[in-house]
Amino acid sequence: MIPRALTWSSDARRLRILDQRLLPERVVERELCTIDEVDEALRTLAVRGAPAIGVAAALGVIAAFARAGVPDRAALLAALDRLAGARPTAVNLPWAMARLRRVVIVAEANLLDALAAEAERILAEDIAMCDAIGRHGQGLLPDGARVLTHCNAGALATAGIGTALAPVYTASAAGRRVEVIACETRPLLQGSRITAWELSAAGIPVTVCTDSMAAALMREGRLDLVLVGADRIAANGDIANKIGTYGHAVAAHHHGLPFYVAAPSSTIDASLFGGASIPIERRDADEVRRVGGQVVAPPDVPVENPAFDITPASLISAIVTDRGVFRPPYRFVEAP
Amino acid sequence: MIPRALTWSSDARRLRILDQRLLPERVVERELCTIDEVDEALRTLAVRGAPAIGVAAALGVIAAFARAGVPDRAALLAALDRLAGARPTAVNLPWAMARLRRVVIVAEANLLDALAAEAERILAEDIAMCDAIGRHGQGLLPDGARVLTHCNAGALATAGIGTALAPVYTASAAGRRVEVIACETRPLLQGSRITAWELSAAGIPVTVCTDSMAAALMREGRLDLVLVGADRIAANGDIANKIGTYGHAVAAHHHGLPFYVAAPSSTIDASLFGGASIPIERRDADEVRRVGGQVVAPPDVPVENPAFDITPASLISAIVTDRGVFRPPYRFVEAP
Repeated sequence: MIPRALTWSSDARRLRILDQRLLPERVVERELCTIDEVDEALRTLAVRGAPAIGVAAALGVIAAFARAGVPDRAALLAALDRLAGARPTAVNLPWAMARLRRVVIVAEANLLDALAAEAERILAEDIAMCDAIGRHGQGLLPDGARVLTHCNAGALATAGIGTALAPVYTASAAGRRVEVIACETRPLLQGSRITAWELSAAGIPVTVCTDSMAAALMREGRLDLVLVGADRIAANGDIANKIGTYGHAVAAHHHGLPFYVAAPSSTIDASLFGGASIPIERRDADEVRRVGGQVVAPPDVPVENPAFDITPASLISAIVTDRGVFRPPYRFVEAP
Repeated sequence: MIPRALTWSSDARRLRILDQRLLPERVVERELCTIDEVDEALRTLAVRGAPAIGVAAALGVIAAFARAGVPDRAALLAALDRLAGARPTAVNLPWAMARLRRVVIVAEANLLDALAAEAERILAEDIAMCDAIGRHGQGLLPDGARVLTHCNAGALATAGIGTALAPVYTASAAGRRVEVIACETRPLLQGSRITAWELSAAGIPVTVCTDSMAAALMREGRLDLVLVGADRIAANGDIANKIGTYGHAVAAHHHGLPFYVAAPSSTIDASLFGGASIPIERRDADEVRRVGGQVVAPPDVPVENPAFDITPASLISAIVTDRGVFRPPYRFVEAP
C-alpha cells in the first residue's frame, strides 16, 4: 500500500495526517481539529511537500470550522490569511487559501458546504495530477529499471501517489519491476528519512545511499536512470530542485544515463526565461552544522546552505508533467 | 599555527595526541602512557589517518616501554603484534611495527635507545614526506585559489602538515591567498569535523558544504580546482580515495576545472595495473543509518556503504607525491 500524507473523511469532515517529523522511527497519525493545530503541523513540517501542504491547509480549514459550528466570515478570512503564511516558499499554500477566500466572499448560503466542495476539488485535482504524471511517465521505466532519486517528491509530498515517484508506483502497479536507490539528501535527509520509508511501506525495493555515492554507482553500472522532482521549471526547461540534483545530472550525462524530471505542470513558470532567473533560498547554517543535535562542524566556520540548485535543460532527457512527456528543446510558452 | 595530530617529547619520551573523537566540539590533548592506551587511541580513532597512526603506534611503544623500565624483548614483540592489528586497512601500521620488530631482533645493547631512534626516524620521514608534497604541489595553487577538498588528508592525518592539504599550507606560508571549501564527507563527516577545524585553527579561510553542493558551486564559478588525497594509486594512475571523490572528479571534468591528487609515494601500488584491482572496503550500514545516535533511515531498508571509490586516471590532471608532480599518462612502474 502506498502510504498517504493525509486522509480526509468527507462525511465527518475530519482530517488525519501522517506525522512526518517522526519518520522513520515512529509511524504516527494525528488528527488536526483546530486552526492552531493545522498551523503548527504546517510550520513544523509534520506535513510537508508543496502539493500536500496546499491540500492539508484547505481541508484543515474545513475540519476546524466544521467543529466550531456556524462559521463566521471574518474568522474564516483570518484563518485563511494565517495559514497562507505558515510556510514561506511553496506557492501552493497561498494559492489554495486564495481559492477558499473567493468562496468565502462569493458564497451566499451553506458557506461551509461550498468551502468543503472547493477544498475537496483541490484534493481531487492533486490526486488526479499525481495519477496523470504516473500515467505519462511510467513508459520511461523499462522492466527491471534501477532508478536513482533525490529528496522526496513521493506520495508523502502530495495528497496522491507523488510527483517524481508517481511513474515508479504506476510502472510497478502495471507489473514491471522497478528498484529505487534513494539518495539520503543532506542536509535535511528527506531521502533516507521519507523516500526510503515510503517506498518500503509501498513494497517497492529501495536502497539508501549517501549523496556522494551516486556517481560511483553509475560507474559500476548499477543504475539505469535518474528521476527527480522540480520546485520550479523555467520556460527553456532549466529546473530548480533540491541541492544535489545538479551533481546527479552531471554524473548521469557523463555516464550516458537518462536524467528525467517529473513535476506538476503548476511548477512551470513560463515568465522565467531560464534557470538564472530562479531565486535560490539560502537556509540556516545550523542545518549543515548539526545533525540530530550533534555538532558536526566548527561553529565559527562559514557554511554553504543553498536549498536548491539549477539543472540546465541541456542535461535533462525529458520533463514529465500531468500534461505529458516533454523532450528537448523545451519551450514552455504559457503559464499552465 | 597548523595543528598537530601528535607531539613527541624526545628527551622525556612522552607522546601526546589530539583526541580527534571530540572535534570539533572539544579540543583535548591526551598523553598515551601504556600500550593499552595506545591501542585504544588507535582503535577508537582518537588518532586517525594512515601516516599518523603508523607514527603514533611507533612512538607509543617507546613511550610505554620507557615508563615500564628495562624492556623485555618478548613483551616488546607482543606489543608490536598487538598494535599492528589495531586497525585493519592502512598499511602504515603493520609497516611501522615491522620496522621496530627488526630493531628488537637485531639490536644488541641499548635496545630502547635503538627503538627510539627508529621510531623518531619514522616520525622525521613522515614530516619530511608532508613537506615534500607541499613543496612540489604548491605551484598548482595560484594566488587566490579556491580549492575544493574532500575528507581529511590534512595535518591531522599525519605527523606533519598533511598530504592533500600540504600544498595549501605551503602556498599560504609562501604568501599566496588560498581558500578551501571542505565537503563534509558523509557518512563519517571527516571534512566538516576535522578538515574545517584544522584549517580554521591554521588560519586558512575555510567554508563547509555538503558533498551534494560541490557541483553547484562549480557551476556558479566559485571553485578553481579540486585537491584530494588517495588511499591507493595504481600503476596507470587510477586512484582509490574516500567515497564521493569520483563524483567531484566527474563534476570538475564537466566544468573544465583541474582535479589534483596529492598523496605519499608509499600510496602507489605498482603491482596493481588499474583501479579495477583495488579492493573496496564495505563498511557497516549503521554509519549511514545513524548520525550522532539519531536514526535517519528505516532499519529494514538496505544501505550502500562503500568506504572508497575509484577515480580513473583520465579524470586526474596531476598526481603530487613527495617525489614530484606527475602528469598523464601515468606510468608508475616500480614500487616506491
